[in-house]
Amino acid sequence: MRAYDVILRKRNGFELSEEEINFFINGIMDNSIPDYQASALLMAIYFKGLSKKETAQLTMAMVNSGEVLDLSSINGLKVDKHSTGGVGDKISLIVIPLVASAGIPVAKISGRGLGHTGGTIDKLESISGFRTDLSTETFFNNVNKYKMAIAGQTDNITPADKKLYSLRDVTATVDSIPLIASSIMSKKIASGADSIVLDVKVGSGAFMKNMTEAIELAETMVDIGRALNKKTIAIVSDMNQPLGHEVGNANEVKEAIDVLKGNGAEDETYVALTIASYMTILGGAFNTFEKAYSYLEEVIKSGEAVEYFRRLVSIQGGDPNIIDNPDLLPQAKNHIEIKSEEEGYVYSINAENIGVAAMLLGAGRRKKNDPIDHAAGITLIKKVGQKVAKGETICILHTNMSKWDEAYKVAKSSFEIGEAKKTSSPYIHKIIQ
Amino acid sequence: MRAYDVILRKRNGFELSEEEINFFINGIMDNSIPDYQASALLMAIYFKGLSKKETAQLTMAMVNSGEVLDLSSINGLKVDKHSTGGVGDKISLIVIPLVASAGIPVAKISGRGLGHTGGTIDKLESISGFRTDLSTETFFNNVNKYKMAIAGQTDNITPADKKLYSLRDVTATVDSIPLIASSIMSKKIASGADSIVLDVKVGSGAFMKNMTEAIELAETMVDIGRALNKKTIAIVSDMNQPLGHEVGNANEVKEAIDVLKGNGAEDETYVALTIASYMTILGGAFNTFEKAYSYLEEVIKSGEAVEYFRRLVSIQGGDPNIIDNPDLLPQAKNHIEIKSEEEGYVYSINAENIGVAAMLLGAGRRKKNDPIDHAAGITLIKKVGQKVAKGETICILHTNMSKWDEAYKVAKSSFEIGEAKKTSSPYIHKIIQ
Repeated sequence: MRAYDVILRKRNGFELSEEEINFFINGIMDNSIPDYQASALLMAIYFKGLSKKETAQLTMAMVNSGEVLDLSSINGLKVDKHSTGGVGDKISLIVIPLVASAGIPVAKISGRGLGHTGGTIDKLESISGFRTDLSTETFFNNVNKYKMAIAGQTDNITPADKKLYSLRDVTATVDSIPLIASSIMSKKIASGADSIVLDVKVGSGAFMKNMTEAIELAETMVDIGRALNKKTIAIVSDMNQPLGHEVGNANEVKEAIDVLKGNGAEDETYVALTIASYMTILGGAFNTFEKAYSYLEEVIKSGEAVEYFRRLVSIQGGDPNIIDNPDLLPQAKNHIEIKSEEEGYVYSINAENIGVAAMLLGAGRRKKNDPIDHAAGITLIKKVGQKVAKGETICILHTNMSKWDEAYKVAKSSFEIGEAKKTSSPYIHKIIQ
Repeated sequence: MRAYDVILRKRNGFELSEEEINFFINGIMDNSIPDYQASALLMAIYFKGLSKKETAQLTMAMVNSGEVLDLSSINGLKVDKHSTGGVGDKISLIVIPLVASAGIPVAKISGRGLGHTGGTIDKLESISGFRTDLSTETFFNNVNKYKMAIAGQTDNITPADKKLYSLRDVTATVDSIPLIASSIMSKKIASGADSIVLDVKVGSGAFMKNMTEAIELAETMVDIGRALNKKTIAIVSDMNQPLGHEVGNANEVKEAIDVLKGNGAEDETYVALTIASYMTILGGAFNTFEKAYSYLEEVIKSGEAVEYFRRLVSIQGGDPNIIDNPDLLPQAKNHIEIKSEEEGYVYSINAENIGVAAMLLGAGRRKKNDPIDHAAGITLIKKVGQKVAKGETICILHTNMSKWDEAYKVAKSSFEIGEAKKTSSPYIHKIIQ
């Protein structure tokens, strides 16, 4: 078999065989296939796509390129959750304790963030003492005993995906639905889950800007799950404005705690509970969405949810006092209020720009290994559809930096104030299963 | 400017600017743009094409990547000729003396062959003593004095094309019309010609197998010539069977001499005279095709044409006695006749397979720097449309090898004998100017 022929066949629109896909992935791993052939194939895939079969086979080839976590020593069906990424997306923090409270084991493997704000691991590290470098034994024991644990992704998972991704990133072949779908699904499958709930974000602050593509991505990932015997449900949720009111790290932890206490923002609460409901269904705890959802509402109301979060913080070495006293979380030195110059209604909040502003304040990373300031971030006082008076505060910047002009400008221009009231988008656009 | 953005813009179907094209070609030359980005761009070009403007600009960028021959010290308009390659294509050998005889300077820069048979330089080197490593001074002096000289291509011409071609060759991006057209035209323009006659071959023995693509390639090259102020005429000529009767090196020289003596095969003579006619027109010797063509017929009839060839051989150090006694050319030890097993008419001769058989006999190169046996080759006794009796010889293999089974099999199966007489294709399908 020659890499040339694989490229030629894909270029000419033929379906690649499993042998050809494995040959290619093995070849990029042992360097027998040079990067210039890999990038030519990626561009051919960009134009010609991949069939359902090819996409599933590519996913498995990438899974098999590295370590696959064996979660069989954990009792019960293991359910994982993944978000394609949004601004103010702290849903993982909320669903871990919720799902665990329903008796479903959550063995969460998360990454650090690159971009506007940190990833789930970064956010949790706002909590003094919180550790995610658990030994495999502790991780498994905690899941068996407490139904939850979170650890950072190891470097040994899906190395083929890492290699392909770094090539796609510099050859304008990132935005190919089957390549995005197989990349995400390979990581989830290698992390050992039995079933997966996907949160595909769509809108100004998401990777997928339009609905058609978001639905296509969601369907492609559900198809991969089906082909590989991993039950998968995808939620297409709105990211036309940031989720909730807090964007950052420590402030997002605080908002997650609010949701678990029953004081969360409506959008955040609804999306988190929907995802947690589907996770408990896939885990076998409930057989209808309504039963799952009302159980979780009850768990929040009874205070059990926040106790699960307290336990998670404790067992990972963090300071549980932050639950009752969120002011123990890192606080920024400077808080800058941005005020509206007009009277009217918030017409839109560009989520991506709010993310950029948060990064400029220190909340995110431009490059891998950049430090993160857990205290930095933005609080949105007003959200889409809300009335605003002239001179009223629309958002507050939190930063330890002494210069914030650029972030101020970007954050301010993210708000569009109009004369007429605009109803905000639905929180969830579609469920695909 | 970033290579990423250039790839992205082409992938999205935009026209690249001259700056972007130059940036890319300079980048691949100084290695600031890695091969994996170059191959991604090539695949994007394969799918999205290049506009006339982009194709001309790419051509010039490749011309400027290396040495450009300055032929200004040669008097008169310099006309060059290029063939996209066929089996039995010895037209360059015929047109050099013909065009020179009309007073038009021919400063021919040719390559060695890779494939079925040798290139023009290889063929001429069948002649004992023939040298093509002339000094620049001798080359120019000969053209000024005798109106003709031939030299091998230097390594310094269009290095960007060489680099891109070697990348295309392994990434399934060779068969892109604008890339083929700019590659050919860049070499011709860097060789310093004022105007160019292109012989685009189409059919079973050509790179272009179908007419639509051949015409598209011809038109694209004529467009490049127009955009870059090089008068260009393209002829789309037939390669559904080998041209003439001889395929090889020494035997092709012999057949070229036959044409110049007026004893050539009809197809060979017609195509060679047509090309030579357009060359003399572009050189300013004639203003109509009819005048040019009948002048050249006259030159052949008068014996002047073959005298020009004798002079070419002499001034390049070759033995001029081969003109009167072609048996002085290298002769193979073995001559194997292939006979027809059926009675009927030759229905088709697969030109590509005849070429492969010739290579198997030693006439061509598989790899660069392979040796060539000038004596090896094939003589076609019968051509398409001719009647053949059972047991009659259809072709003769010439070789110094002691094993020829494979070549015999390939050559024999190239002939298709049918019951009904088939008229052969026209020699020239289209003229584009």
